[in-house]
Amino acid sequence: MKAAIRQARKAERDGEVPIGAVVVYEGKVIGKGYNRRLKTQLASAHAEMMAIDAACRKLKSWRLPGAEIYVTLEPCPMCMGAILNARIDKLYFGAYELKVKSFTQELAASNLVNHTVEVEGGVMKEECAFLLSDFFKRMRVREGQKPQVVDPVKNC
Amino acid sequence: MKAAIRQARKAERDGEVPIGAVVVYEGKVIGKGYNRRLKTQLASAHAEMMAIDAACRKLKSWRLPGAEIYVTLEPCPMCMGAILNARIDKLYFGAYELKVKSFTQELAASNLVNHTVEVEGGVMKEECAFLLSDFFKRMRVREGQKPQVVDPVKNC
Repeated sequence: MKAAIRQARKAERDGEVPIGAVVVYEGKVIGKGYNRRLKTQLASAHAEMMAIDAACRKLKSWRLPGAEIYVTLEPCPMCMGAILNARIDKLYFGAYELKVKSFTQELAASNLVNHTVEVEGGVMKEECAFLLSDFFKRMRVREGQKPQVVDPVKNC
Repeated sequence: MKAAIRQARKAERDGEVPIGAVVVYEGKVIGKGYNRRLKTQLASAHAEMMAIDAACRKLKSWRLPGAEIYVTLEPCPMCMGAILNARIDKLYFGAYELKVKSFTQELAASNLVNHTVEVEGGVMKEECAFLLSDFFKRMRVREGQKPQVVDPVKNC
């Protein structure tokens, strides 16, 4: 998760919502990604999609059984669907996102493509949640608005 | 939908499962895509993802309100999540995929990102379903297997 946090910091440095992800296979990071939606202006440019694409390129395979993904924030349904499509075995995420919780669990267990994903949430959750709360707080201060709790999913 | 079917034919020509998609904005096609998973070996290389990425590039925006997407097969959850993330207003799909039906409806209506997607299924459904059934039939004949009904989602 520390490697995923380092990826999230790269997004933050670029003024993007700080979310990072890494794919691990046989103990090694084989794909890294961070949110690049503003820079690329692509709706698909989420950290997980970047990390999964990089891992597929590394292994030259769209199937990644035996792989695990670490993400700093609970994935949105697009990214959860990609994790399933790539046959990734296990998802570790940091901060919880209650709005997507039911989709995370349902998709992980759906067996839609003859595959299920094991899910472990809350890994280094304080550090991962702080990345987001600190980013939005600073953004709002910069914009002259009163700091408030921000829902990251609305910004997804 | 005819333009989406033409995209699906391109996938078929390359030996890929024939699924195609186009994004339409103000009456014009602004993004096209077809399944390229085998060729690229990327789990994300679905027709819809390609079409949405192309449309975002065309409009230089990750948000595509006012846009519609036409897909030959009911989208998987990854692609449905991308449609939602891109704030596409309406999804038209051809062939039904009963296994993903609940996710399509739930995601479309979820308002997860303060946006809902209107869905109309079964557009030119016979033509769209035939693309798939014919492809899998020919594939099995080529492999010397008895032709049978194949579930396209297992191959997603």
